[in-house]
Amino acid sequence: MQERSSKKIEILDSTLRDGAQGEGISFSVQDKIHICQALDELGVAYIEAGNPGSNPKDMEFFQEMKKVQLKNARLCAFGSTRRKDIKCSEDTNLQSLLSAGTETVVIFGKSWAFQVTDILRTSLEENLLMIKETCAFLKEKGRRVIYDAEHFFTGYQDNSEYALKTLQAALDGGAEVLCLCETKGGCMPDDIREIVKDVVSRFDPESASKNSFDPESASKNSPEILKIQDSQVSSGAQEGQCCSSGSSGSSTAGASGDSSFTKTASRVKIGIHCHNDSGLAVANSIIAVQEGATHLQGTLLGFGERTGNANLSCIIPNLELKLGYSTVGKENIKNLTAISKRVAEITNISLNPQLPYVGAGAFSHKAGMHIDAVLKNPDAYEHVSPESVGNARVFLMSEVAGRATIIEKLSKIDPSISKNSEEVKEVIGRMKQLEFEGYQFEGADGSFELLARKIIGRYQPFFKLHYYQTNGVNPRPEDGVCACAQIKLEVDGQVEVTAGEGDGPVNALDIALRKALSRFYPSVSQIRLIDYKVRVLDGSGTDSRVRVLIESTDGIREWTTVGVSSDIMEASWLALCDSFEYKLIKDIERHLRR
Amino acid sequence: MQERSSKKIEILDSTLRDGAQGEGISFSVQDKIHICQALDELGVAYIEAGNPGSNPKDMEFFQEMKKVQLKNARLCAFGSTRRKDIKCSEDTNLQSLLSAGTETVVIFGKSWAFQVTDILRTSLEENLLMIKETCAFLKEKGRRVIYDAEHFFTGYQDNSEYALKTLQAALDGGAEVLCLCETKGGCMPDDIREIVKDVVSRFDPESASKNSFDPESASKNSPEILKIQDSQVSSGAQEGQCCSSGSSGSSTAGASGDSSFTKTASRVKIGIHCHNDSGLAVANSIIAVQEGATHLQGTLLGFGERTGNANLSCIIPNLELKLGYSTVGKENIKNLTAISKRVAEITNISLNPQLPYVGAGAFSHKAGMHIDAVLKNPDAYEHVSPESVGNARVFLMSEVAGRATIIEKLSKIDPSISKNSEEVKEVIGRMKQLEFEGYQFEGADGSFELLARKIIGRYQPFFKLHYYQTNGVNPRPEDGVCACAQIKLEVDGQVEVTAGEGDGPVNALDIALRKALSRFYPSVSQIRLIDYKVRVLDGSGTDSRVRVLIESTDGIREWTTVGVSSDIMEASWLALCDSFEYKLIKDIERHLRR
Repeated sequence: MQERSSKKIEILDSTLRDGAQGEGISFSVQDKIHICQALDELGVAYIEAGNPGSNPKDMEFFQEMKKVQLKNARLCAFGSTRRKDIKCSEDTNLQSLLSAGTETVVIFGKSWAFQVTDILRTSLEENLLMIKETCAFLKEKGRRVIYDAEHFFTGYQDNSEYALKTLQAALDGGAEVLCLCETKGGCMPDDIREIVKDVVSRFDPESASKNSFDPESASKNSPEILKIQDSQVSSGAQEGQCCSSGSSGSSTAGASGDSSFTKTASRVKIGIHCHNDSGLAVANSIIAVQEGATHLQGTLLGFGERTGNANLSCIIPNLELKLGYSTVGKENIKNLTAISKRVAEITNISLNPQLPYVGAGAFSHKAGMHIDAVLKNPDAYEHVSPESVGNARVFLMSEVAGRATIIEKLSKIDPSISKNSEEVKEVIGRMKQLEFEGYQFEGADGSFELLARKIIGRYQPFFKLHYYQTNGVNPRPEDGVCACAQIKLEVDGQVEVTAGEGDGPVNALDIALRKALSRFYPSVSQIRLIDYKVRVLDGSGTDSRVRVLIESTDGIREWTTVGVSSDIMEASWLALCDSFEYKLIKDIERHLRR
Repeated sequence: MQERSSKKIEILDSTLRDGAQGEGISFSVQDKIHICQALDELGVAYIEAGNPGSNPKDMEFFQEMKKVQLKNARLCAFGSTRRKDIKCSEDTNLQSLLSAGTETVVIFGKSWAFQVTDILRTSLEENLLMIKETCAFLKEKGRRVIYDAEHFFTGYQDNSEYALKTLQAALDGGAEVLCLCETKGGCMPDDIREIVKDVVSRFDPESASKNSFDPESASKNSPEILKIQDSQVSSGAQEGQCCSSGSSGSSTAGASGDSSFTKTASRVKIGIHCHNDSGLAVANSIIAVQEGATHLQGTLLGFGERTGNANLSCIIPNLELKLGYSTVGKENIKNLTAISKRVAEITNISLNPQLPYVGAGAFSHKAGMHIDAVLKNPDAYEHVSPESVGNARVFLMSEVAGRATIIEKLSKIDPSISKNSEEVKEVIGRMKQLEFEGYQFEGADGSFELLARKIIGRYQPFFKLHYYQTNGVNPRPEDGVCACAQIKLEVDGQVEVTAGEGDGPVNALDIALRKALSRFYPSVSQIRLIDYKVRVLDGSGTDSRVRVLIESTDGIREWTTVGVSSDIMEASWLALCDSFEYKLIKDIERHLRR
């Protein structure tokens, strides 16, 4: 039905900038670096990572990122056009933007006349100058510029002539991408279709879709074409080049002779940036691409202010697997689910199981009739194969890792294990049960190995717990110690009783366990906990179940372990024990290999 | 931009049938009755409430509903076409369907040839008979029939001739609605547009949209119009009436002379039923309506198998407020948020705050710049007014939030505070310091109000803590109690010492505090914690700082409080205390207003 296009669409992910505006989302510098690495692995073209002018934490991040090598993506800093009535060189935000040191910058400006006069409170002419001069200033400084036309669609509906002039101003200033932002998220699909079609026909006629839904409408619009008067835009080059629609030649706007870019952009790209306030961000983004947009902005998991930004984890497979566009490549899409989970985990939010393509329930089947049909032929109730996006088919239960992964992991512990071994079935069964209880083995490699070893008989406990007991007090006593833990354990018949003090009962228990074990296993002193995460599983009161994830290192390797309980102490204890035991197993393995 | 239509679209809500297929969703009979009442109040035309043939609980529900009077909605029972190779009168599922006693029944059948031959494993001819005879049988028994053409779009793409024949069979059997189901959720908007356009032009040409996107395409299709051979469909009336496209007369299909319906349907309606597997259910539903569908199925909150059904809480306001269709009426839409919350509450799920229109965050603003603009003019960043859907504007408190939000909140506590008051500066300064330490006031309205009250001198402590002490043990003793807390506090010189046991030390402390305070403030027993969240702030070991967010309710309002400490106990304690104190302040305020 759909004519498949092989057009390349460049993807800009704004999880770290627009996504950070989402309710309850707050990234540390380390979080941001890890998310950049995940997005780079997915293969997006651009990562818009923050506004160095408005946030000192973002500036620190850009400094740190100078040490990080990205394989696929270009990092972008984001900022606004210069303030009114000053020179670009005097604008401190633009200075911050430059000092972020990214090759590409994203500049947003006003395209809605009402916003200029009523919110910005300046003249329409000054706003055009602000846009043009800001783009030109950054270009002069060797930057590539993506121009975000804020409120473009509302602006176009209100005053199309002015909205188009703002695009022209950015183009004249040297912007390589003119990104049309549907800032309020209120547009219906037909609005997007008509407006993008018009903009593309004016600024990037070569991209005007051959299989556009109504080819007649473009020509129908022709007589009304706006003649943009450039007189208001005083300085700069390439004036008025893109104001005629339907011309067959290429539109050589944007970067030109004075560019210090490595690669010179041959023609301007039209971009699309949608919000989900009407539940249409995915559809509107796709429709814009079908009308000729070749640059697409969103956030991987739809994070963003209010109802969120266009969800890339849904748009990317729609474009690539359904409509034949090229985005991050089909091979990379196989990592989409894993990368989405990683980004959710770093953000410390639970991934909505209903999320298309990447949600835990996206390929789950509950109705008996559907399950029967899918068993006969998956095509019966699946629109794409779960494998194509790295997800898995689920029948009323949650199996995170595929069978093949599990077999692969087991055979590393015991090379005699093959795909038909009884142990494989047992491990999968036990995993499913634990995942149902709230465990998650996806990132918890340490706990998975211990679980597998216990089932296949390759495990000996390193100690036996008699009991532990923790105490917390408030207010803190004079010495500042608010918690202590007492522990009694046994190794080869030898009993050790000891105690530890700490900052809270979990920390005290960690210290006491370490002390007790170090008598028997001195190497536990090498263990350092590098992350401790708590996730409440069922949103109810203080007795809800929690999952604790602990990330540890001994300076050589890193591993993660997991514990689940309605008692936060017990969940922490389970993850701690796994961490210590995993370390001891690896020490023995290393010893045996010598 | 959009031509506004005043066409009436009838809404069928399937929360209780298709929605019940969603992961983790399970309704009791009472739940179902309460949801029916909520949907009826919203004003949907139909409530599809269950499959009495497949589920004894559903049958009980239909019996109970005979006692319930609905104001607006018609209740429908749902079932499949008769089984292959038997008579309708011998089919036990159809008998169950009849005994549900609803005036309207929804019958689903196969429209995809592949499903007939490979899943149902019968002949294409027999399937047509199954559809036609089932509709005719039910009509004979005095029922109005809505026919759900399962997999219609996939079927049409695979074998359009056969897919259209299944619709004709239902029409011949007397169905009043032919609902096109996009069962796999994989269709792109253009697929929906083209297929619905074709079906409408054949079966309900009067509804073919005048402002359809490509009027030329309908006529372009004309020469290819399928001549449906009715020879295979042996019995029944009105054969072949609707097979010509573009005829100007009305298509008097469906109910006719022998009908025992109160109201005789004058012409068949085309319906649309979408799933969200590609994130496009809302868009596809709207596009189908724009192409002439006049019956629309979905679930109020998007519940449903896999990624869910089309979300009516989003589609209804889009159609009514944006596109000028009539669905439940503008007045009723003002109850949309309240009814959505009620349905979520009955289902025992947390409403996704990002949900368009009805989510708690749908009209929340975080970026300072956006807040400034919205205060100048809400139209700046809001696509509709929150009041139009019964929702509310929210300014999130955060380091990016501007001064204006804070002033607005402070003036609610003390109307004498204006933007130049010294207190404003103090509150902002203290907030920034606390946010630097890891606090987050965005969302934590309760803790923000307490902080502000402390600074502006509108706060009196409700109690004085002498100390608390918590104990945790592992393994759990025989009674299963693994933690206890002891607390000593003082109110107006009266000292209370008490203790509580719980599931972990945080839960024990919660219980002990509640016990101690209830002697002085009985209303604390109304407080119920509905969410408890833990976020580790700096990824290091078990002594890293944690932020605890607690969401509470007293059945009337909801509030959130926050605590930060390197001791998880202390962080929880701070958030708990704030929650209890906030409740007591609100009780006093309410008392004073009387």
